[in-house]
Order: sequence, then C-alpha cells, then structure tokens
Amino acid sequence: MFSGTNLPKIGGYNYNVVLSSIQAADGISRVELAKQTGLTAQTVSVIVRRLIEQGIVQESGSSPSAGGKPRKTLRINPTAAYAVGIHFDPIEVSVVVVDMTGHKLAHSRHAISPRLEPEALISEAAEFAHKHLAELDIADDRVLGVGAACPGPIDQSQGLVISPPRHDCWTEVPIKRLLERDIGFSVIVDNDANAAAIGERWSGHGRGISDFAFLYMGTGIGGAMFLSNNIYRGVSLNAGEFGHIVVEPNGTPCYCGNRGCLEAMCSPGAISRDVRAELAMGRASTLAKLYHKDPELVDHTAICLAAVDGDAVARRVIDRAAEYLADCAVTIANALDVELLVIGGKGVTHVADIYKEKVTEFLMSRPLARKTHTLQVAISDMANDGAALGAASLVLHAAYAPSTADLISVFRSHSD
Amino acid sequence: MFSGTNLPKIGGYNYNVVLSSIQAADGISRVELAKQTGLTAQTVSVIVRRLIEQGIVQESGSSPSAGGKPRKTLRINPTAAYAVGIHFDPIEVSVVVVDMTGHKLAHSRHAISPRLEPEALISEAAEFAHKHLAELDIADDRVLGVGAACPGPIDQSQGLVISPPRHDCWTEVPIKRLLERDIGFSVIVDNDANAAAIGERWSGHGRGISDFAFLYMGTGIGGAMFLSNNIYRGVSLNAGEFGHIVVEPNGTPCYCGNRGCLEAMCSPGAISRDVRAELAMGRASTLAKLYHKDPELVDHTAICLAAVDGDAVARRVIDRAAEYLADCAVTIANALDVELLVIGGKGVTHVADIYKEKVTEFLMSRPLARKTHTLQVAISDMANDGAALGAASLVLHAAYAPSTADLISVFRSHSD
Repeated sequence: MFSGTNLPKIGGYNYNVVLSSIQAADGISRVELAKQTGLTAQTVSVIVRRLIEQGIVQESGSSPSAGGKPRKTLRINPTAAYAVGIHFDPIEVSVVVVDMTGHKLAHSRHAISPRLEPEALISEAAEFAHKHLAELDIADDRVLGVGAACPGPIDQSQGLVISPPRHDCWTEVPIKRLLERDIGFSVIVDNDANAAAIGERWSGHGRGISDFAFLYMGTGIGGAMFLSNNIYRGVSLNAGEFGHIVVEPNGTPCYCGNRGCLEAMCSPGAISRDVRAELAMGRASTLAKLYHKDPELVDHTAICLAAVDGDAVARRVIDRAAEYLADCAVTIANALDVELLVIGGKGVTHVADIYKEKVTEFLMSRPLARKTHTLQVAISDMANDGAALGAASLVLHAAYAPSTADLISVFRSHSD
Repeated sequence: MFSGTNLPKIGGYNYNVVLSSIQAADGISRVELAKQTGLTAQTVSVIVRRLIEQGIVQESGSSPSAGGKPRKTLRINPTAAYAVGIHFDPIEVSVVVVDMTGHKLAHSRHAISPRLEPEALISEAAEFAHKHLAELDIADDRVLGVGAACPGPIDQSQGLVISPPRHDCWTEVPIKRLLERDIGFSVIVDNDANAAAIGERWSGHGRGISDFAFLYMGTGIGGAMFLSNNIYRGVSLNAGEFGHIVVEPNGTPCYCGNRGCLEAMCSPGAISRDVRAELAMGRASTLAKLYHKDPELVDHTAICLAAVDGDAVARRVIDRAAEYLADCAVTIANALDVELLVIGGKGVTHVADIYKEKVTEFLMSRPLARKTHTLQVAISDMANDGAALGAASLVLHAAYAPSTADLISVFRSHSD
C-alpha cells in the first residue's frame, strides 16, 4: 500500500519538474524557475544546462531584471523531439504528428469499414503514420514514440482494448503489441478521454492547471480528470465515466444498466433519435424538408447546423442536451471541486457555444461552494483531432511529466 | 505548479511509510515490510530500530519463516501517544480520547444550546477534554494534539469555520486559535466528513485501502475521498460534496441552489418532513398513534426505529431514501472508480442495514465498469462517534501518514 522512495529517483523527478515548468510557462527565467519549483538556484542551473546540451530547451531572448543583468528566457525547443498520435474511433482513424510542444505538424483522417478486422486496421494506421513522418522528413531516432487512443475500457498495463461498448469486433485486442510490431516505435495506449485530457494538459487549456476535469463527447460520452497534477484513473482504470451519471432518473435506458445517463440523453445518437422522433410527429422543421425522402438519414451534424441556424426542433433538442450537460457539470463541481472543466470531442462541433453558455450559467448558480470558487469552463480548441493530439501527448507526458507515483515506486518492480 | 523535492525530506517520508505500514497491518515482520514498501532491508531495519527506541513500535511474538530463524512481529505500541478529538455538531459536542492505534479510551456527548456563543462552547469543549485526560491519567506531554471536526466549509490553512449552512452563529469562527488558547495543545481543524474518512483510514474499514469514498450522513449529507492514498480536498477545499448531487431533478429545492439534491431528499430533516406529510394525509402508521397530540414532534430516530419495526409509512420513506443513496453511490462508482464506499454518520443509525442492502444491489447492477470491478460498501462501525474519532485521527494522520504532498513541497514555504 505505501511505497518508500530513494535517492536515485529524485534527480529524474526534479529534471522533469524543471522541464514541465518550462513547458507550462510561455518563456521563463532560471530565477523564476527556482522560485516556482522550490528547488535551489544551483539545482535549477545544473538541470537547465543539461536540458540545453540535450537540445530540449533553448535560450530565446531575455527580460530585464530588477537587480542588474537581464535574465535569459528559456523555452522548449519544438524540434527537439516528435511524437505520433493515433485515435481509433468506431467510424474513423485519425493520425497526427506533433513536435515537442504538442504543435500539430501533420494530420489525416480515414473512414473505416466497420467490418475491417482490428489487425488490418492497425497495419493501415501504421502506414499512414510512416507516410506523414517521411513527408515531414523526420528521422526515426527523433520520434519519441506513438500514442494510441481507443474507446474504453482499456487495460493500460497490457495495452489491451477490452470490448468497448460500441466497438463490436474489438474484444481483447492487444493493440500495443500489434501496433508496436507494425510501426516499429514503442506505443502507449489509453482511452480517448484520458488522451484528450493529457493533450489539454500538454498544450491546451489545462496547461499549468493542477486540477481539471474533461468531458469528452465522442460517439459516446466519457471523461477524465487531473487531480493534484496527476491523471486519476481509479482502481480498475475506469474513473471519469461522467457519461453514465444519471441526469433523468426516468429517462432512456442505457446499455450500462442505468436509465437516463448523460450518454443515453445527449450523445450524438441520442440527439439524432430525439430529433427524428419529433419529425415523425410532424413538427415544422427545416430538417423535415431537407430529409423528407428519408427522415431516418437526419444525422447529428445536420441537427447541430440547423440548431445554430435557428431551427426550432433542432434547437429545442440541443438546448435540452445543454441542460443535461450543465447538470452533470454541477455534479462534477460538487464532487471534485476542480479549477476547470474542459468540454471537447467531435460531438460539440458547431454547438460548443450553446453548451458552454448553459454550463457556465448552471455553474454560477448551483454548486454548493460557488461563492468560494466558481468552476471555469472551456471548450477544447483541438476539435475533431483532440483524441489524436492527446494520443501524441501521451508520449510527451509519459517521457517528461513529473509523477509522484514514479517518485515513490522506485523499487516497486524489483520488490517481489 | 510543479514542486521539486530534495534529500532531507526523504528520510522523514520513508519513516512514515514504515510506521504507516505497521499500523495498517495487524502484525508484520521486517522482511514483509521491505517487500511491501520497496525499501531495502537495511533501510527498514534502521527505521524500525528508531521506532522501537522511541517506544512507538514494539516486537510482539514471532512467526515462523521458511528460511530459518523466526521473524519478529512488529506492532504499534498503543500507549506510545494519545490524541483528543472534538466534533462540533449543530446540536451537540462530542469529545473523545484515543490511543496511538485510534482505539477509543473515553468519550462523552454534550447537548448544546443553539444560542450558545461559539467562544463559550469552545471553552466548554476544552474543559471536557482536560477532564477526560485527567481521568485517564494521561500526562500532557503524551498528547500529540487535538483534532476538531466541524460542519464545512472550512478554511483549513487558517483553521477557520466559514458560515456552515446549518450553523447560524458560526460565521468565520477562528476555531483553531480559540481552541488552542483554551486547550493548550496544537489543533488541526477539518470538516466532519473528511475527519470521519481519516478515522476510517486510520482504524476503520479504510485501513490499507488506497482509494475509497465516504458518504457522511450527519445533520446534512457530506462526503470525502481518499484517492491514491491521499485525502483529496479539491482546489477550494470543497471536494466531496456528494450531498449536493441531484437524485431527483424535479425534487425539493435545496439551499445550495439545486433541486432534489441527495441532502434535500434524504437528510434526517428531509425524511422527517416526508413522514410528517404522509401522517398529515391520514396514512395509517404506528407513528400517528405515538405522536397523535403533535405530529410535528415525530423525529428521525423515531422514524428509523419504526421503519425497522415494519411500520409501512416509515419504511416507505426510508426505502425511497435508500434508493436515492444508491443512485448517488452509482455516480460515485462511475466518476471515481474507488475500491470502497463507507457510509457513516449518525443519520444511518438503526437503518444502516436497509441502506447497505439497497446500495449494494445498485452497485452490482448499474455502474459501467461493474464487471471489471464492483465497488464494495461498508457501514462505519464508529456510529455516533465517527466524526469525533475521526477528529482524533486527524492528529495521528498528520503526524504519521506519509504524504507525497509533503515530499514534493520541501522548500515551498521558504521559496518566496
């Protein structure tokens, strides 16, 4: 239960503390680094010299100081290393290449046949990645590794996908082993929501934020959280299933066993179902005209565009979804008391402003501790590529983020 | 945001790792300690020798080992130190004295007038504590300190109670300063739910469990959580407000700003309100006969006893409360994926079995990841004294539990 620590691990931990502090700041001096990390000026100086020699950090410009000589500004060298991110979604595969700062250099999306075997799909994804790296002229030894984001649940220690609810043929797929074989780099696997949250932490709204939650609206609805600077996964790696918080006790039954879960009420599929039901009742809507030949073809994207355009039926359904989302956000505020809630995933495309406004309104008026602290809301800027960018950030995060878990588990693997 | 660590703190951290591992185990050998903590046999041996010299740990008996000579069994010495716990509840003050293992040596409960000024009440509590210590013949230098549990919200750094919702005259009471002045020992303040959770961790169901949640049913409903071996308080120290998770979107309005929160539906006050409403409608109940002169006097204890005794009205209201509790437990399972949920506080007295059965039933059939891992449920054995015992454990926990936050904040206080 409790793990001791030991001297050798401290050096590596402090190295990552300095590197991550430079990454989180947008330009920082050695003096500020020492102040922020609590490390001595000498320790900071030694670590920074090593980071500069390794080409990971560079001095760029300087800022005047109160005392005398100007302080050199330190920044991450974007070209120090690269990472590949791959997102396996039920209907498409996204592949990105990012630099050391998490900046996207290449991306592509590929529709997939639901009947394609996982093994063939993984081989294809590896090919796409190698094509991007070749086009960018990035040598293999500059690639830190590959991150793969998949719908949960996942056994991360084994890199195994375990029968995700909407991914019929993906039962116990050893994705880490298969992808490493095909792509030739080491692979880290995580669920799409965790990957998106780590992406936000590395280069999005979560930069420098110790405690935040992520509500991920993909095909289904998932979530993730950073608590005290570490991603919190739970004892069976299934924490953050915000999509299965009940928002309507008498609502639609969900495959999880509950009724009226957020996912059963607000996922793209649920929203399409509700709009189709309204159209079937003959409600006036631009969608009724557009899809008069086959109302069953009305899809989530068309609904979101119609809602923004003022269509009454679409807007009513989206507004109700926004209220459910906002209810869930209040529960997150009351239970977790985090600083920030980031909402992302392709399910919020087009309607992000409607969702953000309603969630903000509820968070200002309902959580118990709102007078002490109001939970802030942000919409992920990573849009459709959030999970793929996050997958790439998995690699950067694993390599460079200081982890107290690592600090206290120094001999764990040798102990039995 | 990120804090570095340094050599001096490691020794103290590992000392607490060994001490806490001995406390969590019910008898453990040096060899097992080394295996469990990942520390070398030599480090464990040095720390154990110091703990024995200090009288904190004692060798008691031995167990046969596979190799050769029997291994000495190490246990905490209960009389090594003592702690006082005081729970300030809206209607009574509880005072306990515990030994080093968290075992209760003395306790008393004192009804308080709601009109008594906080300052007078705090002085009274200090007197009760000194009376217990004198009766137990415990010298002042054996008392580690005093823990005070109060209804939240609390500013723990300042030891300040900040206008708890049901505690009218307790606005910004500097409880730490006042109590330290009156009692002459150092004081740690925390909210009642956190205190109860720390009590479970030190000597209850949470012993040795890295991740668990606590649902605290006092006058109101609060909560707390241990995540990755540390209590998680949130950015404004208001995490774990499970009482304000909505379980009935169209339910009773709550003072928090929501409708149908767990607290608004299942607190002792809510349960009494619902039963009185049923009696006012003329429903047949033993309570109607008992309180026919003034049905407004029907209280929560009478209702719980009647429910257990088979009274239909009381049982129906308690059963509904059990379902709401179970809904909330499912949300905790989906969001936090902890190993254990402990339910405690005086609100569960008499009806704990009814609550436990329903919560267990829901947790077996509704959380998304139940097939990977079922959240276990336990009822706190600390009954009415849970928060006071927890308050005493605050002292033991602060003195002896290894904290990664301490480990990485070594120079924090000297850094600006």
